[in-house]
Amino acid sequence: MNGAESLLKSLVASDVTVCFGNPGTSEMHFVAALDSVPGMRPILALQENVATGAADGYARMADKPAATLLHLGPGLANGLCNLHNARRASSPVVNIVGDHASSHSRYDAPLSSDIAGFARPVSAWVHSSTSARSVGSDAAKAVRIAREKPGQIATLILPADSAWDSADDVAEPLPLAPHAQASDATIDRIASSIRKGAKTVFLMRGDVLRGRGLMLAGKLAAKTGARLVCDTFAPRLERGVGRVKLERLPYFGEMALSSLQGTDLLVLVGTQPPVSFFAYPNKPSWLTPEGCQVTTLTQPHEDSVAAMEKLVDALDARDALECVTAQTDTAVSLDGRLDSESIVRLIARHMPPNAIFADEGITASILYYDVLENAAPHDHLNLTGGAIGSMMPVATGASVACPERKVITLVGDGSAMYSVQSLWTQAHEQLDVVTIILANRAYKVLNNELKRVGADQDGPNARRMLDLDSPAIGWVDLAKGLGVSAARAETRREFERALGAAIAGRGPCLIEAVID
Amino acid sequence: MNGAESLLKSLVASDVTVCFGNPGTSEMHFVAALDSVPGMRPILALQENVATGAADGYARMADKPAATLLHLGPGLANGLCNLHNARRASSPVVNIVGDHASSHSRYDAPLSSDIAGFARPVSAWVHSSTSARSVGSDAAKAVRIAREKPGQIATLILPADSAWDSADDVAEPLPLAPHAQASDATIDRIASSIRKGAKTVFLMRGDVLRGRGLMLAGKLAAKTGARLVCDTFAPRLERGVGRVKLERLPYFGEMALSSLQGTDLLVLVGTQPPVSFFAYPNKPSWLTPEGCQVTTLTQPHEDSVAAMEKLVDALDARDALECVTAQTDTAVSLDGRLDSESIVRLIARHMPPNAIFADEGITASILYYDVLENAAPHDHLNLTGGAIGSMMPVATGASVACPERKVITLVGDGSAMYSVQSLWTQAHEQLDVVTIILANRAYKVLNNELKRVGADQDGPNARRMLDLDSPAIGWVDLAKGLGVSAARAETRREFERALGAAIAGRGPCLIEAVID
Repeated sequence: MNGAESLLKSLVASDVTVCFGNPGTSEMHFVAALDSVPGMRPILALQENVATGAADGYARMADKPAATLLHLGPGLANGLCNLHNARRASSPVVNIVGDHASSHSRYDAPLSSDIAGFARPVSAWVHSSTSARSVGSDAAKAVRIAREKPGQIATLILPADSAWDSADDVAEPLPLAPHAQASDATIDRIASSIRKGAKTVFLMRGDVLRGRGLMLAGKLAAKTGARLVCDTFAPRLERGVGRVKLERLPYFGEMALSSLQGTDLLVLVGTQPPVSFFAYPNKPSWLTPEGCQVTTLTQPHEDSVAAMEKLVDALDARDALECVTAQTDTAVSLDGRLDSESIVRLIARHMPPNAIFADEGITASILYYDVLENAAPHDHLNLTGGAIGSMMPVATGASVACPERKVITLVGDGSAMYSVQSLWTQAHEQLDVVTIILANRAYKVLNNELKRVGADQDGPNARRMLDLDSPAIGWVDLAKGLGVSAARAETRREFERALGAAIAGRGPCLIEAVID
Repeated sequence: MNGAESLLKSLVASDVTVCFGNPGTSEMHFVAALDSVPGMRPILALQENVATGAADGYARMADKPAATLLHLGPGLANGLCNLHNARRASSPVVNIVGDHASSHSRYDAPLSSDIAGFARPVSAWVHSSTSARSVGSDAAKAVRIAREKPGQIATLILPADSAWDSADDVAEPLPLAPHAQASDATIDRIASSIRKGAKTVFLMRGDVLRGRGLMLAGKLAAKTGARLVCDTFAPRLERGVGRVKLERLPYFGEMALSSLQGTDLLVLVGTQPPVSFFAYPNKPSWLTPEGCQVTTLTQPHEDSVAAMEKLVDALDARDALECVTAQTDTAVSLDGRLDSESIVRLIARHMPPNAIFADEGITASILYYDVLENAAPHDHLNLTGGAIGSMMPVATGASVACPERKVITLVGDGSAMYSVQSLWTQAHEQLDVVTIILANRAYKVLNNELKRVGADQDGPNARRMLDLDSPAIGWVDLAKGLGVSAARAETRREFERALGAAIAGRGPCLIEAVID
């Protein structure tokens, strides 16, 4: 057995069974081992940001890490942006980066670079596996660290000789650290404040936004009158008809601040105090209103669901009936103009049960987020780190994790160009993903932001940096070139027809929705 | 005047007049200033690796830096790979990265990251401009540092408040450091060894491969019998009929070593001793043959052309007649199969005078590099850092620097998918670039490398990581979707017709050359 085989066997033993990557010469033994070691599914991405974003999406839906396989510093560099997003999503990722053989490092060959330096800003742990004998145990350790709550990125650097030298070790999986618990004193303190009649908002992120956690939050709201609010960019939440109703903290700071006005107690559940996404001249960054007390029920690494169980008991809310989203009439007139709002309404109307909705709709999602709660029950995945080009890769990985579920990606055209290579992997793996491009031919959010920062000029040079209309991108051609069937919609009727066909069918497809 | 205007005016004063970028909210004042400050040409890239690669290509051809404009850590991360290549090309780049306002940094908002940490592995200098009052002088300093020989990357981090606060300063350009010179003792020592009859190879990189430097090298070779060899991946060299003949150090280590066998003296001119690109089990990394003395005429930062002038005098070679490439018959049969060799031969035959050839042909370039010396005089640009996805962006920037020259990019399909967004910028700016895709539907070089590393298995999983045939990429559709006219060629006749039309025409176009 060589080091690459030891690595692969150890990963599989630790239940890491999917690898997204793009290898080079220094990773060829790893590639060869994919055929001698059973149990690892390799998935090729044509640019590493697709691989790392897919690992993020896979982790969000599978609740366990995938591995990546990246080629030296440059391969890692290409994937850093979606590792940033994965870090912000608290997604577990076992990030494997090939390196030159140790004997070669001293020569500063063209592909040499500071791999650990590139990795550090996104990684909780960076380790170079300098011997084939230790590569198996290093892999098991990487998995354990990746899975530490709430999930993090463990970067394992693999010198080529650690892959090709002889190894004898398949490492057993390491036990995971126990999930940290909120103290009883914390529960009592918060329960006591709420009992005294504090106007309470629960601001939530993480596992509490799914299944049992969400139901418990609903009971607390029903019993105490507290509001339930999720982070603007929660990595994953369960929404739709029959699910507990949640508000979303608005994106724009002044709206978020205003929505929290009058709150006495802001209870943080698996999250941090709210801050604005960007700074603007003469606008606040800190979004907790004056006079509102901030208190933490659980830190992100603590067990929010268990803490909510205890709080439900402390507040005697176990029998409260949670308020869920009712079935409403979601009819949309098909006669009006196709625009962001009608697109989101038609998605809400036609979303099949148990879908996964990957949201990088940017301006559309800021404005029409609430519309989607009227859809059938689904998982909603958000762009967590603000680095665009995230959700087409995330959708790719989510579909690998949940092949039986329909994945719908809503993405602005500017965002979509960042990781357009995702479409090829979706075709290669025949993933059941519908990609809807909001083709407004501009970085439209930046047209707004240009005004919001007080930079009022809007001259020809600024326009050249913000507009995508010269030339207009032909999304149907692009999709076709990457092996994905596609349709173009300019009217609501065309969009509904294309969406209906996409949802009825199976396999990857794309809809270019042309809007202003 | 605000900080953004001070920055732009100072850059323009220091002769930085082109900016490749993709801005976000934190860079909106910079974007607005593009209309209030004259003299800076903004060029939008749809992914930052196109922007940084274009800055590399621009610098190689303009002999001065462009600026980039990148959005926070993630925007920088997306551009790191081609900054790695630019660093290996010794290209001067003023790398401007926006940051959150200083008051916002403490909040760890979603887009926050360790920008300096990302930048350090590729940058000679990283500096955050923490006041609008100093941003002008920081810009002037960044330009001076970028231009330090042989050229390097200066990263200037620009917090949003340093852009929007009041400034009063336009910085004057700073004087450049004088070019370091080889000592007379070094010249004498090398001249003396050569005079004694040492079998000599000049291994060269940098300015010595152009114009005066190349002519001087030719005179030395003619006078002394020394061989002239350039680095395998020299950033830029002048080639073609009538130019001094150069060998290229072979890519594969064993071939490089063998080509240097029998050499007594290896004279390094602006370069380092040769090492193999990758390490392989039981193959050498160090490529200087035993018994060969290595000596340095000039380090990369020293003035190679001046040193060659002195060496020519010391060896009395001023009147020697340099050996130049003769006009040869470059006819190619149009009846055979279209393959890498015939494509390169047809390019050599039809290359117009004074073209710029951007080479990421990978397997084709390894095998048929020599063919191109029979083309009309041209500049040859190489993939310097080994990180694929470089040369379509480099060609984009080279065309911005030299709008009157035809640019021809030869690129493998695997490489081309890495930075396919380049085509949109070429269309947006109507650049005169012909992109030739070697569509062999595989990472073909890796099929070879899999064998070379001794990983003999070639099973279905390995194939899934190396082949691009499922689905085949439709390059004509992709180009069309990005606004670039395109043709597909499956035979030599079709390829010649498409190439002829591309060279006769103006503006961006693409040829998909289908080969095995």
